[in-house]
Amino acid sequence: MKREIYKGSPVHLFVETVVLPNGKKVDLEIVRHPGASAVVPLLEDGTVVLIHQYRHAAGGFIYEIPAGKLSKGEAPETCATRELEEEVGYRAGHLKKLSAIFTVPGFCDEVIHLYLGTDLKATQQKLDADEVIEIVKMPFEEVMQKIRDQTIRDAKSIVALQLAYAEARTTGLI
Amino acid sequence: MKREIYKGSPVHLFVETVVLPNGKKVDLEIVRHPGASAVVPLLEDGTVVLIHQYRHAAGGFIYEIPAGKLSKGEAPETCATRELEEEVGYRAGHLKKLSAIFTVPGFCDEVIHLYLGTDLKATQQKLDADEVIEIVKMPFEEVMQKIRDQTIRDAKSIVALQLAYAEARTTGLI
Repeated sequence: MKREIYKGSPVHLFVETVVLPNGKKVDLEIVRHPGASAVVPLLEDGTVVLIHQYRHAAGGFIYEIPAGKLSKGEAPETCATRELEEEVGYRAGHLKKLSAIFTVPGFCDEVIHLYLGTDLKATQQKLDADEVIEIVKMPFEEVMQKIRDQTIRDAKSIVALQLAYAEARTTGLI
Repeated sequence: MKREIYKGSPVHLFVETVVLPNGKKVDLEIVRHPGASAVVPLLEDGTVVLIHQYRHAAGGFIYEIPAGKLSKGEAPETCATRELEEEVGYRAGHLKKLSAIFTVPGFCDEVIHLYLGTDLKATQQKLDADEVIEIVKMPFEEVMQKIRDQTIRDAKSIVALQLAYAEARTTGLI
């Protein structure tokens, strides 16, 4: 049984009555989310294209990788391609799937599909009016240092960057 | 200006009117969250103590590290100590802070404080009635493999495990 509490965007909130595997019946709050894709854009010289984005919930600008919600019926890879072009102005010749992660499994069903984007061609950034994004290019080693020193703090970005770094090292891209 | 939409637990939802750095005025949905702590419990033989937890939002059981919300006024390290004992039945002689991450900065202000817990003493697991948790012990190398092969998919857990692995290798714990 589910009861709709609020229908907005991105937050679509329900309270759902669920029987847990231990037999207990509980009411759980759950934000139903369409899912998202995120891409680590890696240039040929080993530079990563990050964004520095204003996030009200985080209290200011934070480092992230390009990402966005799946449109209705959109495949994760199509979304990754679209968001990469819109947010940083690159088209990827190759996308390698890295993982598909749960961001907050305690109260939201969001899954973010993570990719490494390579063979990049510069196109045109196309931001929405409510997106405040600066592009920041950085050598991959510096990115990894900024994860360790807690400058980069966005969960999806850290997971994707760590997996992309290992992939790029294994395949000789860096 | 903010308008309360729903006050539950853990979801406390607001719509807030915000002026972005680009001058545009927008209404943003935001889930205000007390924050949380999570711990990578590392035994002396290099084994990691994971949990396999039922998560309705994720559609079943997923691998995670012990974690939980901050109680009112609780310090992140105190919360980490408490959750470690409640969820897997260990007390940590030493907690090393790894990072403090944003899980979903697009619509929620949750920050999760991540720790590596070592010098572990077995105590007593104390689960809440609505927690369905199995303890799974695993060598650290196997944990890392399960991140790469997408068996472990929880964002906070992956970030903490990657940082803890690097820390444990650097300091000779594994």
